Order: sequence, then C-alpha cells, then structure tokens
Amino acid sequence: MRIDVLTIFPDYFRGPFDVSLLGRARRGGPLDLHVHDLRAYTSDRHRTVDDLPYGGGAGMVMKPEPFFEAVETLFGSVPARPRTVLFTPRGRRLDQRLVADLAGEPLLLLCGRYEGIDERVHAGLATDELSVGDYVLAGGEAAACILVEAVTRLLPGALGNIDSAAEESFTEGLLEYPQYTRPATYRGMAVPDVLLSGDHGAVARWRRERALEHTRRTRPDLFAAWRARSDLDDGS
Amino acid sequence: MRIDVLTIFPDYFRGPFDVSLLGRARRGGPLDLHVHDLRAYTSDRHRTVDDLPYGGGAGMVMKPEPFFEAVETLFGSVPARPRTVLFTPRGRRLDQRLVADLAGEPLLLLCGRYEGIDERVHAGLATDELSVGDYVLAGGEAAACILVEAVTRLLPGALGNIDSAAEESFTEGLLEYPQYTRPATYRGMAVPDVLLSGDHGAVARWRRERALEHTRRTRPDLFAAWRARSDLDDGS
Repeated sequence: MRIDVLTIFPDYFRGPFDVSLLGRARRGGPLDLHVHDLRAYTSDRHRTVDDLPYGGGAGMVMKPEPFFEAVETLFGSVPARPRTVLFTPRGRRLDQRLVADLAGEPLLLLCGRYEGIDERVHAGLATDELSVGDYVLAGGEAAACILVEAVTRLLPGALGNIDSAAEESFTEGLLEYPQYTRPATYRGMAVPDVLLSGDHGAVARWRRERALEHTRRTRPDLFAAWRARSDLDDGS
Repeated sequence: MRIDVLTIFPDYFRGPFDVSLLGRARRGGPLDLHVHDLRAYTSDRHRTVDDLPYGGGAGMVMKPEPFFEAVETLFGSVPARPRTVLFTPRGRRLDQRLVADLAGEPLLLLCGRYEGIDERVHAGLATDELSVGDYVLAGGEAAACILVEAVTRLLPGALGNIDSAAEESFTEGLLEYPQYTRPATYRGMAVPDVLLSGDHGAVARWRRERALEHTRRTRPDLFAAWRARSDLDDGS
C-alpha cells in the first residue's frame, strides 16, 4: 500500500514512521510510505505557506497554491490521483469502519495547520475530509500518524496476528474485556479464578460479560448501538 | 507543565516532541517533557515486557511489573504521583473539554501495546483511561502525541494566539467556517464577495451560517447537541 504525506514538518515523522509497526511494515513489508515537504512547492524566496484571512480574524490561513502545485507535480491531473485525505477539525470523524475502507488503496494525506486552510484546498483537492477526534490539534501531522498506523495494522503481512482483544471487541462494537498475564497474584491483586480454570466456555462467557459491562458503564453510546443491533439480529 | 511518558518505543517521539509547537514549547517554553523507556524497568536479561494471556486467546499481554516498577521508581508512592493516563481502546473518549481539564497539571502517560495490558495496570496505576477515537492502533504512542499536542496548545505562552477558527467553533460546539486567503481567485475558484466587502457584521453572519450548515451536514450529532443547548439558552 502506497501512502504519500504532504506537510510543512517532514521531520515530525522521523520517529513514528521509523520504529515499531510502521518501521517494520516499510522495511520489506506491505507499506510504501513517502513524506513530501510542502515548502518545496512554494515559489517565493521565503517559501511562504500562509497569509492573512479574507474577512479578518485571528490566525493565519494556509495558501492554496503550494498544495495545488505539490499535488499536480507529484500526481498529475485528477484521474491519476490517489484518494486524498485532508485532516481538519471540520472533517468526518474517523472510526474503525472508515479505517477498513481506507486500507489498501493508495492514499495522499494533506497535513495543514489547524488554524485554517484555504477553502479551495478543501473543495479542489480533498476527496475526504477527516478528523481523528473532537479536540483541536496544532496541525494534521499527529492525525496522519493515527491514520497510517490504523490502516497499516490491517494490511496482510503487517502484523503476525491481528486477532487481538481490541480487534475482536471493536469489530463487534464493544470495548475489550480485561486481560491478565503472569504473575497470578501481583501486589495483592489476583487473576480471576475463571481464567485459571481451563474451562474455555466459562472463560468466553466471563469475557463477554465483562466487555458488556465495561461498555455499558464507559461508553453508553456504543452499548446502545450494540443493543439495537442485537435486537435486530434477534428479529425482535 | 510537566508531562512524563512511559513507552517501549522512546524513539517514536523524536519527531513529534522535537519540531513545531512542541519543540518550541519545550525550548524555554511552558512544556517540560520527559520520555522514559519501559524496558529499563524490567529485571530479566531479555528485558521482557509481555507474556501470554491467562485464559488463552490471540496476542500477548503487557506484564504489570515493568509499569509498577517504573512508576514507583520515578514518582514514589501514590500521593506523590501525577495524574496517570493509560491509553487504551477501552478508555473514555478524549474531547476538547477533557483536554482543557488535563491542561496544566502534571501528567504521566502510560503507552501500552493495544493488544492488551494486564488489568492490574488499569486498576492499580491509571487514574484516567483514555481513547483518542474509535479505531484500533498498535499502541498508545500516537495517542500520547495527540494528547500532548492538544494540551500544550492551551498552555499560556505556547501559541502566539489561540483564537483560531477551530478554537472558536469547537468551544461553541460547531465545526469551523470556511477560510480564504489570497489570491482572490485561484483556478477559477473565487473568494465569496462578502469576505471582501469590509462589512464586519455581514462577515460574521456569513461565517456563522456556514458553520451551522457544515455542522448540520457533516456532524448531525454535534448539531443536535448545539441546538439543544441553544433552546435551553432561549428559555424555551
């Protein structure tokens, strides 16, 4: 899977794209990752990427020209371009379903400063406007790390085994159940007996109950959605 | 503001914590950031941080001992410890209100692999379990970058001026309005006349209408919440 990232901070990605999952997925793995410096596509001596907003207001707005120049230079005209994601607090909120939808096909990620990006970049270049959550960041770089990591996990060959608890639970729309490893007792806290019982049916029931209870308590929104789907499946 | 991060991938943060907003906020600014290698708190020759799950199942589970050893060595007993955030897909979902609540006081961020972390780390060390969104990551490092960046933006002295459009809109619970900068026409796309009019009242009305319309279309959940609050404010 090829992913291109356009940013004014290419050095941001030195750690995230070089270590752990992404580092391995790039070194002979399924991930073909390229980072481009937006300032290389400016034409003035100061390599200007932003300017004052029309209509006034605080902050600067990122200029359209460097984005258009970069995308056209790198990918040519529209039919040849990859799916193009602009990270913005205004975007659709990323979730695991959208991650799965994005995994596999070539992607171009546009990272702008969150203060503002000229609307013509939204309208003329982005095929998808995404937000990773309802909080304000300084720019799209951290969001790009999130998306690249989430899609890479799903690529064949990127992980030895992605049947993790988190995977299982999110796929079903529930939060994950508690996990324990050795020692059986640590600082006075013991592993629940059922997990030591060897009774696979009892373990599965316990885990499901814990996942349901934790979801109901921490994320009533997910629990309600899960229950609505369960009712449908029951035909009731 | 002091933030400590505990991770098995300290190199992950080389870019994110060194450039842009966070780099500036650390160099003589309000951010005092420390990254610690979890493996330094293991006691075996292989510096083992995970083990098989009790009760069976796919994936490995992160052991409790390195987390407890690290937190106790770095911060001593409970009363002396900072607010301790464990990133997990099971956690409460981060939003801008929670970011504001976390900004300012000392934080310790625990990054685990998302496959699973021994429940005793959740129960015995974490004061807050957080998720940055409803997607599955490989680990907590990208989530830590999100949180550190979001809280740092809010620290006095970190930004020249945080009255950005994103800030204004999120504070009110709406998505931001479109922004434009020069040139007035680019690739056939013109800046709306109202923004060139010099009529501040008309500009403000236009921006508000666009923010409302965009929120209604892209995030009906936010729009419904905004409208419910507006009705309350009206006393209706």
